Amino acid sequence: MKTSLKKKVMSITAVSTITIGMLVGANWHSSTVKAKPHQNNGNVKNVIFMVPDGYSASYATSYRWYKGEESAMDSMLVGMHRTYSADTEVTDSAAAGTAMATGVKTNNGMISTSPEGKKLKTILQAAEDAGKSSGLVATSTITHATPAVFASNVASRADEANIAPQLLENDVDVILGGGKKYFPNSLLKKAEKDGYEIVSERNDLKKKNKAKKMIGLFAEEGMAPELDRDEKKQPSLAEMTDSALKTLNKDKDGFFLMIEGSQIDWAGHAHDAAWAMKDSQAFEEAVEKALDFAKKDKKTLIVIAGDHDTGGMSVGGYGEYDAKIEVLRDVTATGDFMASQINANKSNIKEIVKKYTTLDLSNDEIEKVKTADKPSIAINEIVSEHALVGWTSTQHTGVDIPLYAFGPSADLFAGLHENTDLPGLMAKAMKIKFKQTK
Amino acid sequence: MKTSLKKKVMSITAVSTITIGMLVGANWHSSTVKAKPHQNNGNVKNVIFMVPDGYSASYATSYRWYKGEESAMDSMLVGMHRTYSADTEVTDSAAAGTAMATGVKTNNGMISTSPEGKKLKTILQAAEDAGKSSGLVATSTITHATPAVFASNVASRADEANIAPQLLENDVDVILGGGKKYFPNSLLKKAEKDGYEIVSERNDLKKKNKAKKMIGLFAEEGMAPELDRDEKKQPSLAEMTDSALKTLNKDKDGFFLMIEGSQIDWAGHAHDAAWAMKDSQAFEEAVEKALDFAKKDKKTLIVIAGDHDTGGMSVGGYGEYDAKIEVLRDVTATGDFMASQINANKSNIKEIVKKYTTLDLSNDEIEKVKTADKPSIAINEIVSEHALVGWTSTQHTGVDIPLYAFGPSADLFAGLHENTDLPGLMAKAMKIKFKQTK
Repeated sequence: MKTSLKKKVMSITAVSTITIGMLVGANWHSSTVKAKPHQNNGNVKNVIFMVPDGYSASYATSYRWYKGEESAMDSMLVGMHRTYSADTEVTDSAAAGTAMATGVKTNNGMISTSPEGKKLKTILQAAEDAGKSSGLVATSTITHATPAVFASNVASRADEANIAPQLLENDVDVILGGGKKYFPNSLLKKAEKDGYEIVSERNDLKKKNKAKKMIGLFAEEGMAPELDRDEKKQPSLAEMTDSALKTLNKDKDGFFLMIEGSQIDWAGHAHDAAWAMKDSQAFEEAVEKALDFAKKDKKTLIVIAGDHDTGGMSVGGYGEYDAKIEVLRDVTATGDFMASQINANKSNIKEIVKKYTTLDLSNDEIEKVKTADKPSIAINEIVSEHALVGWTSTQHTGVDIPLYAFGPSADLFAGLHENTDLPGLMAKAMKIKFKQTK
Repeated sequence: MKTSLKKKVMSITAVSTITIGMLVGANWHSSTVKAKPHQNNGNVKNVIFMVPDGYSASYATSYRWYKGEESAMDSMLVGMHRTYSADTEVTDSAAAGTAMATGVKTNNGMISTSPEGKKLKTILQAAEDAGKSSGLVATSTITHATPAVFASNVASRADEANIAPQLLENDVDVILGGGKKYFPNSLLKKAEKDGYEIVSERNDLKKKNKAKKMIGLFAEEGMAPELDRDEKKQPSLAEMTDSALKTLNKDKDGFFLMIEGSQIDWAGHAHDAAWAMKDSQAFEEAVEKALDFAKKDKKTLIVIAGDHDTGGMSVGGYGEYDAKIEVLRDVTATGDFMASQINANKSNIKEIVKKYTTLDLSNDEIEKVKTADKPSIAINEIVSEHALVGWTSTQHTGVDIPLYAFGPSADLFAGLHENTDLPGLMAKAMKIKFKQTK
């Protein structure tokens, strides 16, 4: 939060709603006047925007089978959104994130920067300007495309070293995820002086919670996939969500918090269906934390939107009228981890795969793994075939993506949207000003 | 319509709404009492249920690119639905149709018959029982799984010869599509005696429209794909929709009409992306006819639901961050038609494909077509690769499917549903009784 602005807005909250509308609002005013008698149109103090990266309808359907019952997201479905970028029909996470953070379509690879190179204002910054606190939580590096777009402007997503200081310059109050290598000691020292608690292990995160600002960096690069996570060192996404909410809730003016389930996408790129499901589960547990908070708070809007599909995953495939998603429940490690356990003469492939998937590989399958350029991908594709999970690409696809919302103003998100509609709708819900300068 | 019942219900319509609720309604009564001030909760006299067979979110996204702008369905998106059958995670059209017609999940292959063999009541029959007229329109044989489930009960979808007479026994007033071979002359003679107009060519359909009942059978088997249709002989789906609406609208008690875009699914099975898009366009034109009618009528609810995904189609694929759906606009024939034009020594493959797709095949691609078991599929997969349309299966997949609605009570369909919820919601909208006997 920016303390100067915070004070100003706090004084405004004493005035009536309509007056605030005139002072800081834009389109939202008409919605107050024509308010439908839904409980959905109550006051929104906080927004929790959650991004399961790569989570298309196929992931949602598969995850339901993996879980064996409805997911926490299912009852929140309100619509879908369109994800293409300014330069192609299939977006990357940088352009998709930029759209959802700024309301502007840009080229793949660009971080809250327009195709012409203009720095774009983000919904997180708009919330800060209105006196709210803000947070970013992810299981990738916290400087990765999806979190980065909310509080930095760089021409290329690869420029993570330049993204890290910008997150602090932009007053992000809670920063939790991986990417320690992009935060030099000098930067962290300065942050500590500015009032941030700094944590780097799971236990610290649980113990500490005194300040109003927190930086938690739990891995040099991305955090571990949920399947392979060392529970002593790294917190879960749900635990990070919990800490972020406790810290941000200290601000009486509310907050904007973005939480990303980063690795559902990474799993999709690797065709690792079990990793995708386990990280979807970790994401759902974070959603449950957010729902618990929102149900008590009653002034918190939760919006959930995958940014694109990854891998062209299908529920079923291979010419069969079936899918066996439950096969994935028995998988206890990523393909990457399994491949790392294969010995030099490749004699233990059958044993390793059996140990971590319960599958008995045929000789043909063993041979495939043995001769593969990337044994991890070969293992993942064999597991996918047993689960009848299909894939059409190692990159993203352009299908419309389900959109979920809960809490006051959730009904704003009903129907089919552009991904660029989302930040404006969140601003409208919070009754804050949000406009790109021309 | 059943004329005996029709009279009874007509007399009831003189009584107040609440009284009708008590007489014939079930759950709907509470919705009247708690009615939201939406225009959406008005009176529903007619339901037009439209099924674009195989149309998942990937088809919807692709079709938008193919058209170059939003489709007529886009603004009608209200939610999604789950499609699995009683015996597998990936449904066929018989089980999916049975779910949407009867509210009961059954095994793949079964037509409005429970897994235990019980005949199930359909929403079309319930509408008939309430004195409404009914119609079935499809571009497949009219005895094919999706239309069949609404007015017949057989253990196997293959039993089309037994489905045909049941459509008449069940008093379906309008029957338009293919499948002449399943209607022996004796059956049609009897139908004519019972008041049906019988037509078999496009011009007849346009000219005739005097009776309240009509049978139009425009092909021995399925009708032609829209790309290959002979406009002199066969009507479009939009033209059949128009005729069905004119005929059914003669009933003052309203109607239930099911319209299927049957061949989007067939195109998906064949990986013929251009056929899928052209038949999606034909379906959209039928939707526009329905919308024109509903907007004037104001008492018509339109519900649109694909029954499942076909082919695991993806928008993009092949490891690229792109899709080139616009390539499909230049395709003017199905792969089946192109393959039929290849000469005996297979010397004209390049020329044929160039003529009907504008694509210049490479020597490798020509060789692929030449040596393929099914040259049509080989052509389709080459075209798909040029358009960057991916496929994971020659059968269906199990992903959740977009759900669209327009008109009074459209809001009943908001959110994530089971496919088995749909007939109950349509009955609720029409305020008619609909229950399976135990």
